Parts: sequence; C-alpha cells; structure tokens
Amino acid sequence: MKNPIGHNKLDLDTPCLTIDLDILEENLRKMQDFVRAAGKQLRPHAKTHKCSTLARKQIETGAIGICVAKVSEAEILATQGIKNILITGPVAGSHKIQRLLDCLKKAPSLLLVVDHPQNAAELHQAVRKENLTLNILLDLNIGLNRTGMSPGEAMAMAQQMADWPALKLQGIQAYAGHIQHLPSHAERQRISSACLEKAAEVFHRLRKMGLSCNIFSGTGTGTYDMDVLQPDLTELQTGSYALMDAEYAAIGSSTQSLRFADFRPSLTLLTSVVSANQKGFVTVDAGLKALYRDGASPTIATPSLAGAQYDWFGDEYGKVTLLPNHTPPKIGDVLELVVSHCDPTVNLFDCFYITRQNTVVDIWPIDLRGKCQ
Amino acid sequence: MKNPIGHNKLDLDTPCLTIDLDILEENLRKMQDFVRAAGKQLRPHAKTHKCSTLARKQIETGAIGICVAKVSEAEILATQGIKNILITGPVAGSHKIQRLLDCLKKAPSLLLVVDHPQNAAELHQAVRKENLTLNILLDLNIGLNRTGMSPGEAMAMAQQMADWPALKLQGIQAYAGHIQHLPSHAERQRISSACLEKAAEVFHRLRKMGLSCNIFSGTGTGTYDMDVLQPDLTELQTGSYALMDAEYAAIGSSTQSLRFADFRPSLTLLTSVVSANQKGFVTVDAGLKALYRDGASPTIATPSLAGAQYDWFGDEYGKVTLLPNHTPPKIGDVLELVVSHCDPTVNLFDCFYITRQNTVVDIWPIDLRGKCQ
Repeated sequence: MKNPIGHNKLDLDTPCLTIDLDILEENLRKMQDFVRAAGKQLRPHAKTHKCSTLARKQIETGAIGICVAKVSEAEILATQGIKNILITGPVAGSHKIQRLLDCLKKAPSLLLVVDHPQNAAELHQAVRKENLTLNILLDLNIGLNRTGMSPGEAMAMAQQMADWPALKLQGIQAYAGHIQHLPSHAERQRISSACLEKAAEVFHRLRKMGLSCNIFSGTGTGTYDMDVLQPDLTELQTGSYALMDAEYAAIGSSTQSLRFADFRPSLTLLTSVVSANQKGFVTVDAGLKALYRDGASPTIATPSLAGAQYDWFGDEYGKVTLLPNHTPPKIGDVLELVVSHCDPTVNLFDCFYITRQNTVVDIWPIDLRGKCQ
Repeated sequence: MKNPIGHNKLDLDTPCLTIDLDILEENLRKMQDFVRAAGKQLRPHAKTHKCSTLARKQIETGAIGICVAKVSEAEILATQGIKNILITGPVAGSHKIQRLLDCLKKAPSLLLVVDHPQNAAELHQAVRKENLTLNILLDLNIGLNRTGMSPGEAMAMAQQMADWPALKLQGIQAYAGHIQHLPSHAERQRISSACLEKAAEVFHRLRKMGLSCNIFSGTGTGTYDMDVLQPDLTELQTGSYALMDAEYAAIGSSTQSLRFADFRPSLTLLTSVVSANQKGFVTVDAGLKALYRDGASPTIATPSLAGAQYDWFGDEYGKVTLLPNHTPPKIGDVLELVVSHCDPTVNLFDCFYITRQNTVVDIWPIDLRGKCQ
C-alpha cells in the first residue's frame, strides 16, 4: 500500500508492527505521573523501542533524557537533537571510543557508565585529547554479574577519578536485570530492595567523600513500583512499559499474582494466514524473522480467536492452533498478536504503523534498528 | 572505521558478520559440483543469506536461479536483475498479489508455488487482468504440514489448472523441512526418501495426464546428499550450505555420526569483550539482537579460547564462560563465533564483511534484510 494513512490497520501488508497511540500515551503518562509523584525522575530506555520519534514523545511527556545501550544508538539520538542521553553499558575499544567522541561533540550532556579503570583511563585520554569533558556514572554490579563493579571496586575507581580530570563523576548506575521477570511481586520486591540497598551504600559513601554524586540511576519495568521506595534512587530507566509484551504481562503485580496490567500492550504484530490446508491450525506469515523467539508465548489479540496458540514454524512462518469453537480463519485473513519480548522483535522491523481506534495515523521509523554496535 | 578494506578482520568494529570468501567459494563450488554430478540442477535459497551479491555468485557458480521465501525478497532480486526466481511459499492477499505482479513484470521467468484453489483463482484473475502469465509449481505437503497440499488436493488442483489459463503449470515443490536437522544421517535418509517418494508419485501422475510438469524442486542442506538419489527430483533448493552454522555442523553426515563437515562455516560473528570483572567469564557485546537465540549453541572459533562457551546475557550482551586453561581475554579483545542458526542471525545485520586470509576485501549489503513481507 503506497500510503496507509487513514486506512484500517487490518488493511496493512503483513507482517508488520503497529502501536496503538492511545495506549502508548496512556503508558507514557502513567509511568511519568507515577515517577513524578514518587519524587523521582524518568530517563526511559530506548533499547526497547529503537525509535527517536517515540523517545521525543517520552521527553515531551516529562522524561529528563533517554537511555541507550549502545553508542550506535546514541549517535542517532544525538543527531536527532535528543539531550541527556545515558549510555547504560561500557563503551570499550578504540572504534567505540572514537564514535563516542563524535557523539559527545553533538551532545555534550551525554552520560556514560564505566566499570573498569583500564576503560576509564582510555576514555580519559581520548576525551582530554579533544579538550572535551565526559559525564560519568559508576556502573555497579548488584547481582546480574553482566557489567558493573563491586562496591569496593567502585570506591577505588571513585578515588582514582582525580587522575582523570576530563571525566566528571556524576553518580552511579545499578540495574538488577536478573529479577525483572520474577513472577512473584513480593519476591521481586524483597530482592530488588536488597540489591538497591547495596548501591545506596556506595552512593552515601561517595557523597560523604565529598565527590560530586547526584545521580542514582536504575530499575526496570518489572521493579519500577517497588524501586521508588529506595529513597536515594534519583531516576528510573524503564523501557518496556511503553510497548509491553507477553513476557511482562505474565509476571505478578502489586494487585494480581499472575498478571501485570499496570501498563497495557500498545505494540502488536499483524500477520496473515498463508496456508489453511490442515485441521485445527493455520499457517501465518510471521516466523522467527518477524517475531523473535524469546520470552513468553505470544498472545493472540484477535477477539474472535481468543485462546488460540501461536508457535514458531520456521524462519518465515508461524502456526496458529485453534480451539474447537473457533471459526478457522481463511487465507489472507489478518491476525493480531502481542509479541513475546518487545525489544528484539522491534529490532526486526523498519517502522511502526501508528494507529488510533484501529486507523493508521502515522508511520514512525525504527531508526535505531540494527544499531547493535 | 571509515573504510575497512585491507584491514585485518579483528580490527572491525563489533558486533559484525564476516564471510570467509575462500570458504564460501569452496562451499558454493562443492554443492554445485555435487548436484551437477548427480544430474540435477541447483536453485539455492536466498532466505539464508539475504544478499543479492551472494545470489549472483551462486548463479555464476552454475545455479539455474534463486529461491526466496517472500515476495518482498523477490522484489529486490528482480530489481537486481536475478532471473528464474522461485518463491517457495504461497503469495496470498491483495497486497502481496499486487507486489507479485510488479515483480513479474520485471522478472517474467518468476516461479511461484500455490497450495490452495482460492489462492490460485485470485492469482489467475490478477495475472490475466494484466495480460501476463505466471509459472506455477504445486506445493506438496510431504510431512512438514506447514504449507502444501496432499496428493489428492494437488491432483484436483492440477485438473482445475485448465480454468486458469494465465497460470502455467511447470511442476511441483516438496520440502521436508521437519527432518533437515535430524541427528542421524540414516534416519534422515529413510524418512526423506519416503517423503520424496510421495511427491514423485504425484509427479508421475501429472506427467501421465499429459500436463506440463518438468520441475520437481525440493530438499535442503540436511538432506542434499540423499535426496539426489530420488531419480525424479530435478532441482535442489539448499540454502544453509553457503554460510553454515552450529546447528547444521552438529548433525550427523554420511561419514561422521555427530559432525556435518561437508560444508565449512564461512560465516562468523565478531564480538568484543566489554566487561571483565568476574572470575571465569567475560561479557561480550553480542546478545539477542546480534546473535539470534535459536538452534544449537554458538561455537567459539577463536583458537586460543577453544572450548569456551557462549550464552546469551540479555538483548545486548553475551556471556563467554572460560575453561581453566584459558588466558582471560581483556576488555576490547575481539572473539569470533560460529552462529547458532544462520538465517535469522543474518537478518539482524545490514552487511557482511568479506575476508580472504582474515583481510577484509569487500563489503556486501544484506539487501534482503528485514524483507519478511
């Protein structure tokens, strides 16, 4: 379709991703209001949506900046004029450091985490050579063991910061990625609180040392509501709340033990039936390459097929198993799904079709798609 | 790096995909020679490599055409002047049929499979309206149950072809996708032979009816060497043999029960260490978004880390667990991996870095990347 604006979303060619703008705006507003009421700030993660248009919308809703995972994502956002970008993973190696410098010239408010003195020394040398300064958060490992320093390593690095005047310490980052999808809300709360407490101790010690340390950044969609109880946390890095997915929808929340309905899925995948020769199931045109196989089982959102089950059927196809009461869909019929895990699925597409009341109202490029460097 | 040509591949920014051109050429030549010696033809599948440059290389090596899974892939190849494209899945729905017509005008030799009379009737109407003709293969279901018709349905459709003069029957397609990765070579051979025999019976009956039926297309990398024993099979649709992956490398072959070394991995992923604060493992910059989590465990190809184990560590990171005898790699060090499942991983990147003797000699766009429609 040359121009789908004004058409019903079910008229779109498939597979494709759609975002219900009413639900998206509700999610953005709800998180922003919650965070503000808790006296914190929001710096949402763009690794989920990979879209500078959506990032801008988050800032318009009140976010103080945007998080990204990779320097190649920061490059795009910086070019798009997004300010206060935080790169939440270490930027290591000469290529990456050169790309970071180019970014920093466009976006001087850029923040970067570091978790190793060797990396910090290399960054300092490169930044100083260009007569720039770089804002730094110390990345703390609070249990995920993926990146980050122990409290002792962080304190040692803080003391070493004086050797690196081009690096400006601004605070700490602590992300408990290992518990975001724990089913029990109470267990998540217990562990997350303990994890953040470790980080808060470092935060206190740094401040006692008289070091500039005003940012304590962390949390995710799975722990946003409990982590605001940590008094020292200054900002939240939640990402998935904007789009949501089947994996997050299946964890327990403060109100329901097996349902997380604080935010609703604004993102759905449309897929068409391409083959219908078998009893009890049909074959659709979204497989591994359109719907990333990770996380919980995708959910069929087409009301007439409630309870049908999607499963992957190779690189290009999916199998939708019907219940006895379902009228089997026909070849060409379009089905709607809530995806398993939003982040890697979004990364498979070039754009979102934006809808209101099922009518396409806009197209947003997924301009950070493929930016894994 | 502005222009990596002439540099060692380990100097590339990561994550990225590389193809060893010597190995690729060896794989292409080996398959082509084998197929030719068996008196068959080769129409390799581009769903694996998503690259028109590689497709052209396959044709230069002797392939009679190229297979694609989706019409959006055919569009690119047709624009690139590739002839004898076979679309191996049904093209259903008005958008797809319109796109097919545009393709057909550029590439009149296009072949398409059909598996349902409703779809055939719609195709016929659209093709006739444009005064075109479309070459058709009847898609047979020989056990995968994903697309395709039973022998009875296929025979019924063949008889109905007279109603659809714009559709020119050229033969059949039969793909046993469900057995390509069966570990036992003998079991694969037994099942594949039985599956193809069903298709051969339909092929005979169609020819006895005097219908034009000169193409019998099928097979994959896992059954290529046994399927050439089916006398009626005219052409092979193998895809993965060109790049290879850990999943195929782990199946049994005619010579080794747990190793498929007929083709060597020409494709590898380069990834850098970004964090090294833990004992026994390091964190690298390739996660779900750079290395698709599907198929067998990726294999570390860096010789000094032989036996180390990659595992996914979230969307952006991987965990490489070391053996006691390994010297732990440092931050910024580049590791090389054979990917789990080549097709969906290739679809995550925009280009291949082409190397000879570890030196980058070319960059090939993955121009079919993201073409899932």
